[in-house]
Amino acid sequence: MHVDTLIRCRWAIPMHPKNTVLENVAIGVADGNISVICDQNQAQELTADEIIELNDHVVIPGLVNAHSHAPMNILRGMGADLSLMDWLQTKIWPAEGKLMSPEFAYEGAKLAAQEMLLSGITCTNDQYFFSEHIARAFEDCAMKCTVSALVIGFPSAMAQTTDDYFKCADALFERYQGNNHVRISVGPHAPYTVDDNALSRVVRLSERHNAPIHMHIDETDFEVQESLRLYGMRPIERLANLGIINERLISVHTVHPNDHEMALLANAGAHVAHCPSSNLKLASGFSPVHKMMQMGINVAIGTDSVASNDKLDILAETRLAAMLGKAVAMDPTAMKVHDMLYAATLGGARAIGWGDRIGSIEIGKAADLVAIHLADINTIPTTDPATQLLYSADRSQISHVWTDGKCVVSTQLLQNSPYFHRESSVKLAKKWQNAL
Amino acid sequence: MHVDTLIRCRWAIPMHPKNTVLENVAIGVADGNISVICDQNQAQELTADEIIELNDHVVIPGLVNAHSHAPMNILRGMGADLSLMDWLQTKIWPAEGKLMSPEFAYEGAKLAAQEMLLSGITCTNDQYFFSEHIARAFEDCAMKCTVSALVIGFPSAMAQTTDDYFKCADALFERYQGNNHVRISVGPHAPYTVDDNALSRVVRLSERHNAPIHMHIDETDFEVQESLRLYGMRPIERLANLGIINERLISVHTVHPNDHEMALLANAGAHVAHCPSSNLKLASGFSPVHKMMQMGINVAIGTDSVASNDKLDILAETRLAAMLGKAVAMDPTAMKVHDMLYAATLGGARAIGWGDRIGSIEIGKAADLVAIHLADINTIPTTDPATQLLYSADRSQISHVWTDGKCVVSTQLLQNSPYFHRESSVKLAKKWQNAL
Repeated sequence: MHVDTLIRCRWAIPMHPKNTVLENVAIGVADGNISVICDQNQAQELTADEIIELNDHVVIPGLVNAHSHAPMNILRGMGADLSLMDWLQTKIWPAEGKLMSPEFAYEGAKLAAQEMLLSGITCTNDQYFFSEHIARAFEDCAMKCTVSALVIGFPSAMAQTTDDYFKCADALFERYQGNNHVRISVGPHAPYTVDDNALSRVVRLSERHNAPIHMHIDETDFEVQESLRLYGMRPIERLANLGIINERLISVHTVHPNDHEMALLANAGAHVAHCPSSNLKLASGFSPVHKMMQMGINVAIGTDSVASNDKLDILAETRLAAMLGKAVAMDPTAMKVHDMLYAATLGGARAIGWGDRIGSIEIGKAADLVAIHLADINTIPTTDPATQLLYSADRSQISHVWTDGKCVVSTQLLQNSPYFHRESSVKLAKKWQNAL
Repeated sequence: MHVDTLIRCRWAIPMHPKNTVLENVAIGVADGNISVICDQNQAQELTADEIIELNDHVVIPGLVNAHSHAPMNILRGMGADLSLMDWLQTKIWPAEGKLMSPEFAYEGAKLAAQEMLLSGITCTNDQYFFSEHIARAFEDCAMKCTVSALVIGFPSAMAQTTDDYFKCADALFERYQGNNHVRISVGPHAPYTVDDNALSRVVRLSERHNAPIHMHIDETDFEVQESLRLYGMRPIERLANLGIINERLISVHTVHPNDHEMALLANAGAHVAHCPSSNLKLASGFSPVHKMMQMGINVAIGTDSVASNDKLDILAETRLAAMLGKAVAMDPTAMKVHDMLYAATLGGARAIGWGDRIGSIEIGKAADLVAIHLADINTIPTTDPATQLLYSADRSQISHVWTDGKCVVSTQLLQNSPYFHRESSVKLAKKWQNAL
């Protein structure tokens, strides 16, 4: 049997089956897909155009960013330490008002795509204006994406009326039908910016295309209180009545659901995109994400935009989600390592409508893979590669990123110091590890 | 005027005066100390053995880690997802029991010192067994440190009785008297492991040497409840009665102080070492650190050990402290950027008894400096260097670390990708920044 590329690695975490670390494994890639997963000894029977030896690395599926606003990379660092309304009204909205255009969307998304690739993110779920230009940026960077057909109840540079937004949506679905890299979701912005009538149209559009619905829900307590005041019910209750709460929904943030709302999400098989940095930085609150995971809700991890995060680093975001979730649960045994790595990969892929193609190292799936170098000062001794990957590794330790089997990033961190000796430190750490 | 090294940098954040970003500044170093701080134009009158041009960088004082257990780098990644008692009883204590020795302390601290240096940390405040061997590791890595003369109410490989611990303490103070790189604190482990009698001796020892007291206090609610049960008062109330709560105290963690305890700390001029990752990961709770800062308590940032963190990354830790503090305060305007950078540098230095020598870019202080490269994909556009440094920069963007004016680390992150173009991305980001 012949493969294009054979990756021989010390460890791999396939995500399916869950809770599994493979050791001394070989992953073969042919025609952009994973074609073989076997023991390194068995791999000697394969021929390959290219063999990559990763003796000190762990290979995982490409990370999935379950919520981004990619063009906002241009607005990074704007208005720190402001209240949400000050931030929006004095900084973000005026800037967007001035700059918004297809060019802004494309070039901002290009900056985001580069940061994501260097962070091991190979697929993102984006919502912003001018999604076709965002999709173009991700395609140009050899990434996959789901982009939203945005629906929002006010005029913008992109559309004036609700009808206009739905016309743009139809064009977007048509353009990307059957595309291998771009998939389309319906993106009603939030319960407080889209009316009942438009939401009913969202449901029908999503059903027609079997497309995900990508929506900010229960981000702030204010949103919940306003919903109670205006509709006499909480946001997720209202959305359930309208048919939005279903197995295609990606409920973003979801910081303030009560037990009834969580049950509605769980029973419907809806997904949640948890964005802990953004929720903390904007003081939105503490998501009961451990409860949602216990209830069987599929939880994915999102960065949100760099205007409220300000890093597109899913590895760091997942670490934060794990630690924060333990504290909110008041239980250090909550948010287990493998559950969190799953959320950052296959959980994310399933949430955003890509579970059939990416998110796990399985034969037939796209070879979207990331290798992380663990024999480094930040991650030695490597007692447990999954734990070290989640809690200790930096994105700068990513040595390779492949999409569709093509190497799209290789990274090398050169640290020179008379006091830093990588190899002897690795030996020292191993000595003590063996002494145990 | 002649200097040994002249660092010409785009930005510098001196920390004193606070809330200040200097632009196009030159920092001159002579005999290991900062000897000049001036405009780059004025610097043309200086002669220098070496000139370093940092056109896209921000220079800050070396970061200060206000709480570490350096030798535990050998135990990194052990026992994730366990409860505190399971973790201690089944993992950490057996491992320490088996390995504990001067060699373990020295070699573990060496690994930690290397990780810290690469993270821009030039001084740490450590508490563990065999402190003289830990100090030796930091000296060997050209770092500064405060190490604890440990006092703990049970026997160890280092000492059998309370008297033994105090003998070790006396030897430690004697050995390092007048040392330029190592200072000694008295390190009573925690209220629940040191009795009243030993604590009174701690106070006298600290007074005699004018030395900091480095102690875990109010880490868990359990600790508070036990103190109420055994002593009829909360830990800080008991410690105040014993004379421990004074301007030399570094109160570590301090997750569960009530208003009265916070007032005791504030009125005494005591310092707090906040360790947010550890508090989250062990589910210890949420520190009211924003309240303590509002009350004027000097708050510093610590990593704790890699067994509960698992990174020695003060930049990331400070970012987390800022974001988490906003959420706990339910106020996105809390935990302001410059206050947080201060906590990571001069706040830390003052807390651990080094405020006279390090923590700020001031003439006469040690040239312990860190340069961070901001013209990188993670930190463009650089709208505000202080914000970008805190919220967006990774430790891998640190290009130089100097201690006593000597370059001890230089780092280069090489990212190759057909989709990543550093220079054109920087230009693109600048174009949009200028369009605003």
